[in-house]
Amino acid sequence: MAAIQLKVSSNKMDNLMNAIKKIEEAAKAGANIAILPESWNTPYGTEYFSKYAEEIPKGMCSNQISIAAKENEIFVVAGSIPEKCGHNIYNTTTVWNQDGQLVAKYRKIHLFDIDIPGGITFKESDTLSPGNEFVTFSNGIAKFGLGICYDVRFTELANIYRQKGCSVLIYPGSFNKTTGPLHWELLHRARAVDTQSFVVGVAPAEDIEASYVSHAHSLIVDPMGIVISQAGKEEEIIYAKLDMEIVKATRCQIPVFDQRRTELYETIQKPS
Amino acid sequence: MAAIQLKVSSNKMDNLMNAIKKIEEAAKAGANIAILPESWNTPYGTEYFSKYAEEIPKGMCSNQISIAAKENEIFVVAGSIPEKCGHNIYNTTTVWNQDGQLVAKYRKIHLFDIDIPGGITFKESDTLSPGNEFVTFSNGIAKFGLGICYDVRFTELANIYRQKGCSVLIYPGSFNKTTGPLHWELLHRARAVDTQSFVVGVAPAEDIEASYVSHAHSLIVDPMGIVISQAGKEEEIIYAKLDMEIVKATRCQIPVFDQRRTELYETIQKPS
Repeated sequence: MAAIQLKVSSNKMDNLMNAIKKIEEAAKAGANIAILPESWNTPYGTEYFSKYAEEIPKGMCSNQISIAAKENEIFVVAGSIPEKCGHNIYNTTTVWNQDGQLVAKYRKIHLFDIDIPGGITFKESDTLSPGNEFVTFSNGIAKFGLGICYDVRFTELANIYRQKGCSVLIYPGSFNKTTGPLHWELLHRARAVDTQSFVVGVAPAEDIEASYVSHAHSLIVDPMGIVISQAGKEEEIIYAKLDMEIVKATRCQIPVFDQRRTELYETIQKPS
Repeated sequence: MAAIQLKVSSNKMDNLMNAIKKIEEAAKAGANIAILPESWNTPYGTEYFSKYAEEIPKGMCSNQISIAAKENEIFVVAGSIPEKCGHNIYNTTTVWNQDGQLVAKYRKIHLFDIDIPGGITFKESDTLSPGNEFVTFSNGIAKFGLGICYDVRFTELANIYRQKGCSVLIYPGSFNKTTGPLHWELLHRARAVDTQSFVVGVAPAEDIEASYVSHAHSLIVDPMGIVISQAGKEEEIIYAKLDMEIVKATRCQIPVFDQRRTELYETIQKPS
C-alpha cells in the first residue's frame, strides 16, 4: 500500500498532474493500492470548494484518475475532492480498480465544524452537505471501510465497518496545527486497536503559506496500534505491506469483538 | 483527585492497612476523591481470587474502607477486590462517600480472557463471573462512570457513560508487560478524547516477583487527551485537579457528541 502525502497548490491542473505522477511512482515501486489525501485537487477551505468541485464520475479529475488506475494497474483511493451534485457539494472519496472502474464513492458523513478560540475555527457545513452512507469495497484480499478526516473521531463508524467485516480503514484527512499534534496519531491508533484493523490516515503535505495548514504526518497503523509507517511534513509517499495474518492473529489473541456484551449494549446501524 | 498506585502483596491484611494509610495520606494532601487500583487486596491471578474474596459490604475490606472514608472525610473509589456472592465471584469496585456510605458498586462487565503466545495468557472467566450493569455515581460536582481494566477496550461502555452525562471515567486496572506498553496509555487517552471526559486509570505498582506483573503507570487524562498526571512503576500517589470547565470548553469547541449522526447509527443500551 502507498499513502501519497501530496503537496497541494491552488492550481487544480498542477494538483491533478502531480497526483497522477505520484500514482505512477507508487505503482512502479510495487504498490497495489495508492491513496491520495483529503482535498487533493484544491486547497482546503470553504472558499475553494465550490470553485474546485466536479461532478463524479463526469469531471476531469475522475476521468484522469480512472485512466491512471488502469494504465498503472493499481487500485486508487482518490482521497477526496469537492463533488458537485445538483445544488449540493460533498467532500467525496472515490475508489478505482485496476481496470479504471469506479468501485466505490464515499461522501464524508461528519462535517468538520469546530471552534477552538486561539486555535482553529472551521465550518465545513457552510458550503458542504453531509453524506449519509457507510461505504466499503473489496480488492479480493481484504475489505476496506472508508471515512474522511473528522469521521475518525466517531467510534460508531469504525465499529460498524468492523461489523461489516472490514480489515482496513482508510481515512484521507487533513488535521490542522491545533488538533493535529494532539489527536492525529492518537485517533488513528485508537481506531486500529478498537477494531483490530489496519488504519491509514493520508494527509496533504504541510504548506505554511496556505490558509489552512495541514498537520501532514500521514500514517499506516497495524491492528495492534503500532505505527508501521509515517511521513514527516513534506511531500512524500510512505509504503507498508499489510499482512492480513496480523489481523487474524490480533483478533484471535485479544478477541474483543466476540467479547462485546451485546445483550447489554450494541452499536447499531439504522435502516436507511 | 488522588490515584493511589498501591504496592500489593500476598498478605491481605498488609494490603488493607497500606490502602488505609494511603487514603489518609491522600486526604491530608487535600484530595476529595481517592482511587485504589484493581485487585488491591490480593495478588492478581485466578488462583487467588477465591481465597481473597469477601462479601460486599459485609467483609472486612468494605468495613475498613468505609471507616477510612468517614474518618478522612473523603470519597473512596475502592479499586477492585474479588467479591463473593453466593457461588459466584465478581471483580468489583465499591464507592464510599465522606460519611462512609456505600454509594455505588460496579462488577466488571468484560472479563479478561486473552491469549497472546509468547506474551500473556489469562482467563478471568475460569473463576470470575461478569457483571451486567453500567454504574455511575455523583459527588455533587461531577458524574462518574465506572469500569475495570479490560472494560476500557470497549468503546460502547464509555459512550454510554457519556450519554448518561458522565464527565469522569474511572478504570481501576492492571495491564501487563505485553499489553501495557502497547495499549495502556493509548486506550485511556482514546476514551478521554472519544467522550471528552477526564479518564483515570489506576494500577497496582510493579512487582517483578508476582506471577502477573502490573504495567503500573497510573494516569489521569484530561478531556483533550492530555496526560496531566502519571506515575512510574513504584508505589506512588499521583494527584490532579479536575477542572470541570475544561470538560465544558472541550465539548463546546469540538462538539462531536451533538454531531453524531444518530439517524444513521447509535450506541444503544439494551433494557435489562
